[in-house]
Amino acid sequence: MIITALTSFDVRFPTSRHLDGSDAMNPDPDYSAAYVVLHTGSDLEGHGFCFTIGRGNEVCRAAIDALAPLVVGRSVADLGEFARRLTHDSQLRWLGPEKGATHMATAAVINAAWDLAAKAAGEPLWRYLSDLSPDELVDLVDFRYLTDALTPDEARDILAAALPGRAARRLVLERDGYPAYTTTPGWLGYDDEKLVRLSKEAVADGFSLIKLKVGLNLEDDIRRLSLVRAAVGEDVRIAVDANQRWDVGSAVAWMTALAPFRPWWIEEPTSPDDVLGHAAVRSALASLGGEDHRILVATGEHVQNRVIFKQLLQADAVDIVQLDACRVGGVNENLAILLLAAKFGKPVCPHAGGVGLCELVRHLSMFDFVAVSGSTDNRMIEYVDHLHEHFLDPAIVRAGAYVAPTAAGYSAQMHGESVRQFAFPEGPVWSGREEV
Amino acid sequence: MIITALTSFDVRFPTSRHLDGSDAMNPDPDYSAAYVVLHTGSDLEGHGFCFTIGRGNEVCRAAIDALAPLVVGRSVADLGEFARRLTHDSQLRWLGPEKGATHMATAAVINAAWDLAAKAAGEPLWRYLSDLSPDELVDLVDFRYLTDALTPDEARDILAAALPGRAARRLVLERDGYPAYTTTPGWLGYDDEKLVRLSKEAVADGFSLIKLKVGLNLEDDIRRLSLVRAAVGEDVRIAVDANQRWDVGSAVAWMTALAPFRPWWIEEPTSPDDVLGHAAVRSALASLGGEDHRILVATGEHVQNRVIFKQLLQADAVDIVQLDACRVGGVNENLAILLLAAKFGKPVCPHAGGVGLCELVRHLSMFDFVAVSGSTDNRMIEYVDHLHEHFLDPAIVRAGAYVAPTAAGYSAQMHGESVRQFAFPEGPVWSGREEV
Repeated sequence: MIITALTSFDVRFPTSRHLDGSDAMNPDPDYSAAYVVLHTGSDLEGHGFCFTIGRGNEVCRAAIDALAPLVVGRSVADLGEFARRLTHDSQLRWLGPEKGATHMATAAVINAAWDLAAKAAGEPLWRYLSDLSPDELVDLVDFRYLTDALTPDEARDILAAALPGRAARRLVLERDGYPAYTTTPGWLGYDDEKLVRLSKEAVADGFSLIKLKVGLNLEDDIRRLSLVRAAVGEDVRIAVDANQRWDVGSAVAWMTALAPFRPWWIEEPTSPDDVLGHAAVRSALASLGGEDHRILVATGEHVQNRVIFKQLLQADAVDIVQLDACRVGGVNENLAILLLAAKFGKPVCPHAGGVGLCELVRHLSMFDFVAVSGSTDNRMIEYVDHLHEHFLDPAIVRAGAYVAPTAAGYSAQMHGESVRQFAFPEGPVWSGREEV
Repeated sequence: MIITALTSFDVRFPTSRHLDGSDAMNPDPDYSAAYVVLHTGSDLEGHGFCFTIGRGNEVCRAAIDALAPLVVGRSVADLGEFARRLTHDSQLRWLGPEKGATHMATAAVINAAWDLAAKAAGEPLWRYLSDLSPDELVDLVDFRYLTDALTPDEARDILAAALPGRAARRLVLERDGYPAYTTTPGWLGYDDEKLVRLSKEAVADGFSLIKLKVGLNLEDDIRRLSLVRAAVGEDVRIAVDANQRWDVGSAVAWMTALAPFRPWWIEEPTSPDDVLGHAAVRSALASLGGEDHRILVATGEHVQNRVIFKQLLQADAVDIVQLDACRVGGVNENLAILLLAAKFGKPVCPHAGGVGLCELVRHLSMFDFVAVSGSTDNRMIEYVDHLHEHFLDPAIVRAGAYVAPTAAGYSAQMHGESVRQFAFPEGPVWSGREEV
């Protein structure tokens, strides 16, 4: 199967109008996707995207277009070679390497190629991936810059060790789904009444962990956390997320003030680039949570590539690895990150929400459970209840768990009408020709 | 003075036709600039650019255009606030933060603003900057994510300590220039005869350090290094540059093989993101160089921002800090990096070459000597002898030293005819209407 053409789209949802997605660093996001379709000359298409929060989405789209010459005319038979071709282009690499807008665009294109391959095989991606042998999976990974922490042989051993239980774990997923947690209640732009109401609803819906945004105002955070703790009781886990708001010292001071409310993890306490900073925060928080609970450190949604993840693990800087489906180099680099996390024994709790991230990451976590870590202990996928209606194969969460997807592909495809309506700036939603 | 408009250009030089600039990771670069002009409604314009090696230059240009709404209508009176506005835009920040194509575009725009401010003051940038007080300089720096390593008070102390000798050091620069080293002989694409001839010429021209590209083939590297060592003698320093070719283990093994030729530093032994990897390489190389010389570790041209530089210094991972004028957030972030290097006592040897980097970094190093570190010990600016003819105020090196520039501005302005001729893809050089 040969890719005959690549088309790209700038799709933006005006989420800032209702403050969905508002946090300490992102007060008014317009959740957006730089969206790509790989054509094959038949009905079969591969869809993919990277997620942005508005301005700059056109830069990611330009970066997708820059990748077209590397993709058109290529097959998706060897997706290891396909991915390396994109990340190793000697001239484009200068804009990274493997970071920022060009790497996000690479994610979009690689995800689209996987969507295409899984559709051609008639399998949902998580099943398609977990049918591959350890050797085939190892060939998908770019081990450059990883071998001081993870060699191909070690990766093969991890995958081989998970071979025996694959079929049984697939059945578990198809019966029970994969654990979810929710961020829906906790956006900073929501008032106290909405926060408490949504928190109670989340618990009633079966979620055992809810996440609150923090970091803008300490008094507000104390009040909000105290309200939610009172509303949900002691047994529900509450994670907090600072979205990179703090320096190391502020992170420690702020979390010291929040510790009495027993936050489960602090997410993105500081710069996602700051491996040593996260290690310092984690070390300082070790004694704060009391005897029965240490406040965990989580990060990953803005971690640019496997090299930073490798160091976060080498430096023992994080407890929770929050991979993102669309920031690193797509399925291939996320496979590397899952293997790194397995090697270091850390749970992966993917970042989701945004546009279509819930749709994608469920495949990665389910594949991880079947074929890599073999565990769901302390592992959950983030869930946010918005924008799913734009996808052909939307994420479904029941009783606090993601239902295993069954449709062929990577669930990345949006309805054509959504792409048309929300096209920026010419679509009717943005040109003022239609109300939302 | 208000910026009334921003215009951008995609300028590419077909350097791949002669293998200038070829190294182990970049076999056929077309040295390029995403170029920006800030207009003021008068004759005064601010020029800036970021450097790329060809494909993808249009992505940086798109990112420059994305910054236009944050710039047009603004004054350059407070360039600290100006720079923070660009890097803190909540939506654009999602594409980084502060890395990759959008950060390179930010560099271009911030550099253009400094060019404008220095031109308005009638001073070359290095003099203009070194007339500012410690308080004014501290206000230019974004200390977010730095305060665990460098506080504003510490920065102020460093700058205050350098106040007394400013005038004397200016005179030294105006008399002697600033030390340079050359990469001109060492491109991988050059044959042995050209390598040896250019190396001898470099020594005759007064350079005391020359740099060779390595990392593609060990036997070739041994032969080339041995030829150059024989040609230049024992007293000339030879640095080698692997351009990120290796994993940690390969870096150590390769440099062990090259150690007998006494390389002065190994540059970019591995991923620029890999702080811990550089620390491991540096530690392993410590015993290799014999009693009189430890092989130093250098990196920086691809280091994305001050947060990675901070960690490279915190982890004692580098000996030489190689800032780049156009990859991090322009003059402001480079001021942060100069201060960090001063705090940790490491010399800065800026990356140059490319398009216009020699023109820019001489201002930063000269400012560092006058107002920050106060020293040129073990400090040199890279020099590569190409593409200078396209600039109004080209870098001039005499007897192995950069001559202090005297023209007002940041020396970033290209000849209009160069921008026109080399415009991609419509300029005559690329559209085939003129021979180069």
